[in-house]
Amino acid sequence: MSTEPEKLHISYNHVHKLCQEAAEGIRANGKPDVIVAIGGGGFIPARILRSFIKHKGEKNIPIQAIGLSLYESYGDDDVEQIGKEVIRTQWLDMGALAEHFDSLIGKNILIVDEVDDSRTTLHYALSELEKDVREVQEKLGRTSEKTTFSIFVLHNKNKPKRASLPEAMFAEGRYHAAKTVPDAWIAYPWDQMDIDAHTQKATEQGFI
Amino acid sequence: MSTEPEKLHISYNHVHKLCQEAAEGIRANGKPDVIVAIGGGGFIPARILRSFIKHKGEKNIPIQAIGLSLYESYGDDDVEQIGKEVIRTQWLDMGALAEHFDSLIGKNILIVDEVDDSRTTLHYALSELEKDVREVQEKLGRTSEKTTFSIFVLHNKNKPKRASLPEAMFAEGRYHAAKTVPDAWIAYPWDQMDIDAHTQKATEQGFI
Repeated sequence: MSTEPEKLHISYNHVHKLCQEAAEGIRANGKPDVIVAIGGGGFIPARILRSFIKHKGEKNIPIQAIGLSLYESYGDDDVEQIGKEVIRTQWLDMGALAEHFDSLIGKNILIVDEVDDSRTTLHYALSELEKDVREVQEKLGRTSEKTTFSIFVLHNKNKPKRASLPEAMFAEGRYHAAKTVPDAWIAYPWDQMDIDAHTQKATEQGFI
Repeated sequence: MSTEPEKLHISYNHVHKLCQEAAEGIRANGKPDVIVAIGGGGFIPARILRSFIKHKGEKNIPIQAIGLSLYESYGDDDVEQIGKEVIRTQWLDMGALAEHFDSLIGKNILIVDEVDDSRTTLHYALSELEKDVREVQEKLGRTSEKTTFSIFVLHNKNKPKRASLPEAMFAEGRYHAAKTVPDAWIAYPWDQMDIDAHTQKATEQGFI
């Protein structure tokens, strides 16, 4: 009998297909004008998703990155202590955004991360981005324009959450999880030291 | 006889292995303090590379993203017109950097992109980042501290380049290309509509 927790092995091609499957639903609910990837986990799904949200002949959707850190590793890769707070390691450069994208005001903004675990990181990202945009709107006297936030994650863990998202986000179909899974350990391919062995396990589990 | 250009099909697992193979060489030449990913192509290699550069017990290396656009698609995915200039769609937020990383001064900075094609984008990214850091160093009176830039790409195309990089970068082993390839069309997995068919072709070509 193993005491190892249930572990889901996810291949790159599976991640690719999850993004592909989710893209039309995301687009149907309002094509994103900009993707905000929560780094490091959101980078890979954001980049893949972009290929599928974009239709032939359209311009690429810009990806902006923010860095948020909730877990911090202490001395051993297998032992992680849950951080007391979310730490910003990178935030949007609103100056550059204003210049190139006419800011985020009135836009459809899609926030992307790999997993919705405790929901703490997503709650933080959404509420802080909403606050920043609202401040710029007030500053510029453009409060009548509606800025819409959506969320995409590869996996939502079916478990009690430590933080919440606005009810309207679910009611209006602005929360997109490619898969809802049990509260298991999700092994993403980008963390694997032996990708062939990992892909073999993913194949056996059907996550290919 | 086909008139189709030679096309290299690259699987995700191959990209993963290229990052894995390159990581020790990059680290041996000075562990990066921060990774600057050129988006969108640099996001995926940057995130994978980070897993391999970090040794057990060490903190994650922060990934900062910049958005540079050289090619712009005009109405058809297969027809691309080479831009006359590099367009910044996102740049570093030096404010956030100063707060969280004590800025980039005196650090080892690794710039990551998918491919070194004409070298125009890499030239732009390097020279602009060097200029920005130099300006901050002068402003803060910290010009004696040495800031070191390195580059990592998955593929360097063996072709005449439109722009150059400093000779010292090559002489000092600060230019890392996982593979040098002929001037062919490189099909990366994140752009593929049929990832299974693509992976099959990559397997046949040995890029798995």
